[in-house]
Amino acid sequence: MKNNDQALPDDRYFGSEPKQKEIAMQLYAQVKDLPLVCPHSHVDPRVFADPNYSFGSPAELFIIPDHYVFRMLYSQGIPLEQLGIPCAAGSGAAVERDHRKIWQTFADNFHLFRGTPTGMWLAYELRIVFDIKQKLTSETAQTIYAQIVEKLASPEFRPRRLYDRFHIETLCTTDAATDPLDQHKAIRASGWHGRIVPTFRPDAVVNLDAPAGAWRKHIAALSQVSGIDVHDYRSFIHALENRRAFFKQMGATATDHGVRAPATAPLTARAANAIFQRALRGKHAADDAARFTAHMLIEMARLSVEDGLVMQLHPGSFRNHNDALYARFGADKGADIPVPTEYTRNLRALLNQYGDDPRLTLILFTLDETTYARELAPLAGHYPAVKLGPPWWFNDSLNGMARYFDAVTETAGIYNTAGFNDDTRAFASIPARHDLWRRASCNWLAGLVARGIVDMCDAEAMARALAYDLAKKAYKL
Amino acid sequence: MKNNDQALPDDRYFGSEPKQKEIAMQLYAQVKDLPLVCPHSHVDPRVFADPNYSFGSPAELFIIPDHYVFRMLYSQGIPLEQLGIPCAAGSGAAVERDHRKIWQTFADNFHLFRGTPTGMWLAYELRIVFDIKQKLTSETAQTIYAQIVEKLASPEFRPRRLYDRFHIETLCTTDAATDPLDQHKAIRASGWHGRIVPTFRPDAVVNLDAPAGAWRKHIAALSQVSGIDVHDYRSFIHALENRRAFFKQMGATATDHGVRAPATAPLTARAANAIFQRALRGKHAADDAARFTAHMLIEMARLSVEDGLVMQLHPGSFRNHNDALYARFGADKGADIPVPTEYTRNLRALLNQYGDDPRLTLILFTLDETTYARELAPLAGHYPAVKLGPPWWFNDSLNGMARYFDAVTETAGIYNTAGFNDDTRAFASIPARHDLWRRASCNWLAGLVARGIVDMCDAEAMARALAYDLAKKAYKL
Amino acid sequence: MKNNDQALPDDRYFGSEPKQKEIAMQLYAQVKDLPLVCPHSHVDPRVFADPNYSFGSPAELFIIPDHYVFRMLYSQGIPLEQLGIPCAAGSGAAVERDHRKIWQTFADNFHLFRGTPTGMWLAYELRIVFDIKQKLTSETAQTIYAQIVEKLASPEFRPRRLYDRFHIETLCTTDAATDPLDQHKAIRASGWHGRIVPTFRPDAVVNLDAPAGAWRKHIAALSQVSGIDVHDYRSFIHALENRRAFFKQMGATATDHGVRAPATAPLTARAANAIFQRALRGKHAADDAARFTAHMLIEMARLSVEDGLVMQLHPGSFRNHNDALYARFGADKGADIPVPTEYTRNLRALLNQYGDDPRLTLILFTLDETTYARELAPLAGHYPAVKLGPPWWFNDSLNGMARYFDAVTETAGIYNTAGFNDDTRAFASIPARHDLWRRASCNWLAGLVARGIVDMCDAEAMARALAYDLAKKAYKL
Repeated sequence: MKNNDQALPDDRYFGSEPKQKEIAMQLYAQVKDLPLVCPHSHVDPRVFADPNYSFGSPAELFIIPDHYVFRMLYSQGIPLEQLGIPCAAGSGAAVERDHRKIWQTFADNFHLFRGTPTGMWLAYELRIVFDIKQKLTSETAQTIYAQIVEKLASPEFRPRRLYDRFHIETLCTTDAATDPLDQHKAIRASGWHGRIVPTFRPDAVVNLDAPAGAWRKHIAALSQVSGIDVHDYRSFIHALENRRAFFKQMGATATDHGVRAPATAPLTARAANAIFQRALRGKHAADDAARFTAHMLIEMARLSVEDGLVMQLHPGSFRNHNDALYARFGADKGADIPVPTEYTRNLRALLNQYGDDPRLTLILFTLDETTYARELAPLAGHYPAVKLGPPWWFNDSLNGMARYFDAVTETAGIYNTAGFNDDTRAFASIPARHDLWRRASCNWLAGLVARGIVDMCDAEAMARALAYDLAKKAYKL
Repeated sequence: MKNNDQALPDDRYFGSEPKQKEIAMQLYAQVKDLPLVCPHSHVDPRVFADPNYSFGSPAELFIIPDHYVFRMLYSQGIPLEQLGIPCAAGSGAAVERDHRKIWQTFADNFHLFRGTPTGMWLAYELRIVFDIKQKLTSETAQTIYAQIVEKLASPEFRPRRLYDRFHIETLCTTDAATDPLDQHKAIRASGWHGRIVPTFRPDAVVNLDAPAGAWRKHIAALSQVSGIDVHDYRSFIHALENRRAFFKQMGATATDHGVRAPATAPLTARAANAIFQRALRGKHAADDAARFTAHMLIEMARLSVEDGLVMQLHPGSFRNHNDALYARFGADKGADIPVPTEYTRNLRALLNQYGDDPRLTLILFTLDETTYARELAPLAGHYPAVKLGPPWWFNDSLNGMARYFDAVTETAGIYNTAGFNDDTRAFASIPARHDLWRRASCNWLAGLVARGIVDMCDAEAMARALAYDLAKKAYKL
Repeated sequence: MKNNDQALPDDRYFGSEPKQKEIAMQLYAQVKDLPLVCPHSHVDPRVFADPNYSFGSPAELFIIPDHYVFRMLYSQGIPLEQLGIPCAAGSGAAVERDHRKIWQTFADNFHLFRGTPTGMWLAYELRIVFDIKQKLTSETAQTIYAQIVEKLASPEFRPRRLYDRFHIETLCTTDAATDPLDQHKAIRASGWHGRIVPTFRPDAVVNLDAPAGAWRKHIAALSQVSGIDVHDYRSFIHALENRRAFFKQMGATATDHGVRAPATAPLTARAANAIFQRALRGKHAADDAARFTAHMLIEMARLSVEDGLVMQLHPGSFRNHNDALYARFGADKGADIPVPTEYTRNLRALLNQYGDDPRLTLILFTLDETTYARELAPLAGHYPAVKLGPPWWFNDSLNGMARYFDAVTETAGIYNTAGFNDDTRAFASIPARHDLWRRASCNWLAGLVARGIVDMCDAEAMARALAYDLAKKAYKL
């Protein structure tokens, strides 16, 4: 059997049992056109600052910036150079510059994405966003390339037009604490109606263990951008308060924190300052970085209690696991591998201080699904401050969502979750990701209705909450 | 769509695929009316000692004593005081005394329980135990309150009458080693036909790390109740033997042990005594408590081999995670959070000593589902002494049961499990919990039949075993 | 309901939803008769070396050598002696010699295997391999015994005939580094067409911590068989190179490594030699064995890069957990219990050295399913060298396969897996195991098709890959 059409049936991703599917379709019909709330993304705000921004070639849109895509090709032995990934000069093979060749390699290996979320997102993007009717294969590669090029050249494919077409209501970017937010200023200044707001991410100024001198460079940048001379722990906190206020003024409603382990443990101001001073001199001790991070998470919670910024925590990734690849291509190249993560003991110090405070919202993410039922749902099902983020990264997938609903909701209920976020650099994939979530959540709810666990009336309210309300509420948007 | 009826369809909780559902219904029909064996509960025996015991108000029955219920409301920012939870004097807001108001708050937030096991149990209790036909909402709250009040006032709702109505065969309470079992004596003396038996739980006299002086108080109580002057390790063991014999005489067939980690490691009698003496003087070393517990688990296994009491082990809960809440409201307030738990290495010392002994039955529970397939099923599938308890606490739920059957039975079979227990303080929820288990197990078995894994004849025997035989056999009831 | 037939429906193990089942049946029809590739087994090559080899009695075929079978009986209190398991002399009860009695005990307890993979394999073997139509029960035990005895006596049940009947294409045995491979030589010399190839397993010469003197005995054997005097680390590596070359010459395409934890950390040749010398003198330090193993895994990867042998890693089993049983009956008696296993940090040193090298294929197995989605799929979805082995041991089961597909494929895709292997000592169970895998994989694929995730054309290619192509390719067969 040979199939040349890119199938994307209307009832896709729903279970095939007819009764349940019918319920799922009914629920989905009620939420599929709700606006998209995107409270956590990595889209570059530049994309919206320039009204005439163009995504470049199909390879530049779909392959080169998307580590979900090229890591899979790399895992099968295709060098990143052959996929056009920029790398350190003089360090190996030449980087492919012919984007038609890159696209051909991608198409020749498109079978690798069978059954993967990337495969599902791409199917949506190609079929729905770009109206490509053929299946991507070695044979159709160049025809499809040309069709995409044509689309991308048209005004309908400017990011601001897609923002409206995708029916986005708010999109939060993720921005370094030292970012002057010039792009966000430009977007505001342009008078465009889109709501693009920043998120405060201070990892670079908190992480003392960054490679050689990088941290001090970030501290210098912090001094510069805040106008506060950061020379000790106290001025450091002042500068952070200053930046948080500025981000808030620019529309931010949240902060984001990436750590390997979600350890929290308070230091006295004196001890924190001693570590800070050692780090400034480049002489911090082996465990200073970990102790400082564990302290700063509590400090950030304290500041969130004060300024109301929602606090997101993304722990558990061993970043840049592959040294050679990192040296050659840098960060975010598909070589971040999760590690087991513990929350119950690690978060206790923070939660004992602020977990009961109604002014704090702490949204927890995980790459370790064993914590869903064991730790995260019980924590969210007890502490007023804790909400659970949606399935993250590798688990932002059809199965990952099913496992999440299965493991989280019985203990936490859905009302202790933060709905969905797309968490992507790939702007064109945003509607595909939300659609997948809405289908997955309606399918799960249909299972509850079909088994008499909730009635249709409740399921309708839950479907809307999962698709729209919960994210908006958790992120105060 | 607005629904005012509390739906509770007869085919609830079964998968919706018609063929499998039909098989599930057939199996369920054969087990739904079997008597309830309740080998592990936390019902207060006082409830049965007084033939005229009344449950109080609807809030006193459904909310105030049930941490499953109020922790969910608390997680959404509702203060426990507002739910009538008693607390330390002078420490905050006044405790709500108007039970109609408490009930209204509960009803106003009843949506939080959508899709949760608490929601399923409550639906059963309201619809079947109390014959409430309307759905609990803000609007129906007071009408339903009045209906429940009326029921509770009638003789049919005395606990002894419900015991018969629920078709309970045996109910095991959980009792401190120092408990004189006066309530159990009163039940016996009353000549009532109900079988309420104690379970020996020595945690308080074993755990040296209890808050300030508490352990020594328990040891004093142990001396008093046993008539043995507990002044060293040897007299301590004698007193425990004495109490075990008394519990057994009062009908007990089991002991129960709660620990954070299920570590086992033997001490010499001399080393055990040295720790005991230090603890008596309040001068025990940092790791003494852990070492003593790890030793005492083995010692308890030894005593079980001698007296035949079944040994239950409930590890993996970080009790009282929230310091402020604990200080204000005490234990068992929904702030116990699971931790990762390891069994293979931890239990090895105990199992190497007694795991092959046919006189020992060791029933293992877990809050860490990752251990089902990895550790617990292989242990139960090898050691004659080991049986696996049913899904516990957060996992005592429809999904939790499905995950349990999925992960445990292929390696351990069902005959190395201990059937079901309800493990609840909430007496009125007992039939709801057993019914959920019976439905979940019949649904699982129907899946085996529908896929040709077992035939109907085998499935019928398995359904009965899971509903009744296995618990009775494992607990020697 | 009483059932006397051994049911084994043609549509067994497929989900019961009609649409999905129809697709599954279509896919299965295309792969069910593909040849069996068996790249990792524990079948004794002796079985094929002698053209007239006989399996002995039904107890000798089904019970005595199969720890999957007798551990389940043992877990219910049946002594291994009663099952005919050989043991150390004078150490307890007499070993049962009447194989009809052993068979009767097995039949009397056959209900223990309900819903287990062993139950499914046995159903296939009895019904299909041995054409037994009755269900095995206490009543039918002796009749069935006689029927099997008769079959086993016929020429059709010689192993070489079954090899053809099972449609095996290649079968790889697992052999100690010191094995002279005499049986393999005999098979070759016999001119028989079957392809039985060895696999190089050096655990015994690498593991310094083997009981008293065992390691030095293995080193002596290594010297002897390689003709290289192994007296230091350098000659040790030479001898291993020598043996690898010999195994390769005898048809081997792979090595296999069993470790408790998959730790990898390089030593200098000097440090490795110091440990080696200490071990030769029986004076190695407490952590020498672990350090040496962690080094040798990297060294083995280096040799694989050189000679192209595929490297298999089977970590995570706590072998011989039950001391008394081990002392009395030896290894592989059902008392190996998994432990939590970590790969991200542990494998980093090895992967940083060879993970990007296209000459290395490293096939990872696990007994810790929590690592599927968290660590293994991300590793396989990034490093070119890494492939994931199929569900192993306790997880080589219908549910285990479903969990594997669910957790692994979204991140790794199927093309970073190594297909299936049967990993069994029990030759007669091989077709049953492959059939179970083919059914499970077609059922999973049918779910993808039914939900519009892949089309039928893709599913057909994937079914074939999972049943045949991937194993052949990963193992270079």
